[in-house]
Amino acid sequence: MDLRAYLAERAQLVDAELERWLPPAAAAPAKLHAAMRHLIFPGGKRLRPALAFAGAEAVGSTPERALPVAAAAELVHTYSLIHDDLPCMDDDVERRGRPTVHVLYGEAIAVLAGDALLAASFELLAEAAKQSEPARVLAALRDLAHAAGSRQLVGGQADDLSFPRDTADVALVESVHQRKTAALFEAAVVGGARLGGADGEALARLRGFARGVGIAFQIADDALDADSDEACSLVRVIGAAASRARADELLAGAIDALEPFGAPAEPLREIARFTVSRSQ
Amino acid sequence: MDLRAYLAERAQLVDAELERWLPPAAAAPAKLHAAMRHLIFPGGKRLRPALAFAGAEAVGSTPERALPVAAAAELVHTYSLIHDDLPCMDDDVERRGRPTVHVLYGEAIAVLAGDALLAASFELLAEAAKQSEPARVLAALRDLAHAAGSRQLVGGQADDLSFPRDTADVALVESVHQRKTAALFEAAVVGGARLGGADGEALARLRGFARGVGIAFQIADDALDADSDEACSLVRVIGAAASRARADELLAGAIDALEPFGAPAEPLREIARFTVSRSQ
Repeated sequence: MDLRAYLAERAQLVDAELERWLPPAAAAPAKLHAAMRHLIFPGGKRLRPALAFAGAEAVGSTPERALPVAAAAELVHTYSLIHDDLPCMDDDVERRGRPTVHVLYGEAIAVLAGDALLAASFELLAEAAKQSEPARVLAALRDLAHAAGSRQLVGGQADDLSFPRDTADVALVESVHQRKTAALFEAAVVGGARLGGADGEALARLRGFARGVGIAFQIADDALDADSDEACSLVRVIGAAASRARADELLAGAIDALEPFGAPAEPLREIARFTVSRSQ
Repeated sequence: MDLRAYLAERAQLVDAELERWLPPAAAAPAKLHAAMRHLIFPGGKRLRPALAFAGAEAVGSTPERALPVAAAAELVHTYSLIHDDLPCMDDDVERRGRPTVHVLYGEAIAVLAGDALLAASFELLAEAAKQSEPARVLAALRDLAHAAGSRQLVGGQADDLSFPRDTADVALVESVHQRKTAALFEAAVVGGARLGGADGEALARLRGFARGVGIAFQIADDALDADSDEACSLVRVIGAAASRARADELLAGAIDALEPFGAPAEPLREIARFTVSRSQ
C-alpha cells in the first residue's frame, strides 16, 4: 500500500473534523481561540488519528466510524505539547519550525489553551454518541481520559521532568515512554476499533500492538535526536545499536500481535514500520 | 430543613468517592499525586457536589445516583483553582488558609496536577456508565466538558485576566461570572438531574436556576471581597447596594424556576439562598 497517500487522505479527514469542531480564531476570546489553533493547524504527522482510523479498519470498519476518537486523540496530543513547552516545563521556544504557543500568546494563555483543548477532546468525543453506540463511545472516552491522566501521560511527563540522568535503567526509560507516548497510541488504536465494533480479544491484541509501537517510536525518536540533552533516552543508557535492536524487537512483537487480523490490518502494520524506521 | 446537616452529609458522600477514586498520595509519581490531593482534602464547601446531589433529589431521585457528576464537578473546580493560582495567572500564594499547590510543589507539578484532575473528572464520570444509562452519562459528560471549555470556564478566565478595569459594564462582568462560575454550577445541577432520570423541560428549568444562582453567588462573593483589587466585580461597576439588589433579583428568578418541582427541590432552594446570602 501507498502509506504516504493513506496518511494524506486520513489527515484530510481529521483536519476537516478539527476545523469544524474548534471555535474560529476570531471567536471571543479571540486570543485564546487563536492560541488553541496555533499548533493544530498546520499540524504534525497526525499519527494518532491515523492509528485510530487504521484501528477501525483493522476490525473491518470504516475510517469514518473512528473519526471522533481520531480527532479527540489529536486534541489531547496537542494540549500535552503546549503544556510540555511551557517555561516551567521544557521551556521550548520553537516547535515544528514555528514559535511555541507561550512565546506567541504568553504563558497564561498557553496554559488555558492547553486546558481548553483537553476539555474539547472529551466534548467532541461525547458528542459522537449521536452516531455511535453510547456504551462504546463511553468506553473509548474512559480509555482516552485514563491515557491522559496521572497514571499515564501526565505521570510520564512528571517523571520525565525529574528524570535521574545518572541512575536510569532500561525499565525506567521505557516506563516513561510507555506513559508519555504509548498510552495515547493505545487509546487511539483501541478507541478506533471500539467505535468500529470490536470487543474482547481483538482489543487486547490491538492494545499490545499499540504499546509496542509507542515505545519503539519513542526509542527511534531519541536515536534521531541523539545529540540532544534529553535525559530520558534509551540511547544514553544502552547506546545506539542496542537501542535500535530493542526498537526492532518491539516492532516485530507489535506486528506479530496483528496476525489474526490479516489484510485489513495492513495500514496498522505500515504505520508501525514507518514510525519506527523513519529515523534510518 | 437543616442545610448545615445536609451539606455535611453530602460532603461525606463526595469525599468518600474522591478518596476512592484519586490515586494515593504515595503512588508514583508521589509528588504529582500529593499535589493533586492538596486542594481536594480538606476541600471547601463542596458546593458543586451539593448542587449535583440536590439536582437529582429535585427530580425525585437519590443523591447516590448523582455521585459521579458530583465528584467530577469538584475535580473540575479544583483543577481550575490550581491553574488560576499559578504565577502566570492570578499568582496567589494562599488558598483556604494554606499554601497554594505551586508554592508547595513547584509550578510544573501544579500545571500537571491541574491537568491530571481535569482528565480524572472525565475518567471518573465515564466509569459511571456501569451504574447508569450510558446515554445519560454521556450527556452529563458532554455538558461538563462544555462547561470546562473555551466557551465557558477557560474563556471566562481568559477574559478575567485581561479585564478592562475602567470600561467594564454590567453585561461584561456578568458574562465572566456566567462562564467562570455559573457554567459549572449548571453542569452540576443538570448533570445530577440527568443521572436522576430527568429530561426536557425539567432540565431547562434547572439550567435557568443554576445560571441565576451562579452569577448571584459570584456577585455576592465580590461584595464580600469589596476591598480586593479584583477588576471583574459588579460592586466596582454599580456599587454595593445595586449589586446586592441584582443578586437578590437573580436569586428570586432562580427560586421561581423551581416552582413546578415542589418540596423535593427544597435542598436546591436552600443552597441557593445560602450561596447568595452568606455575605450578609
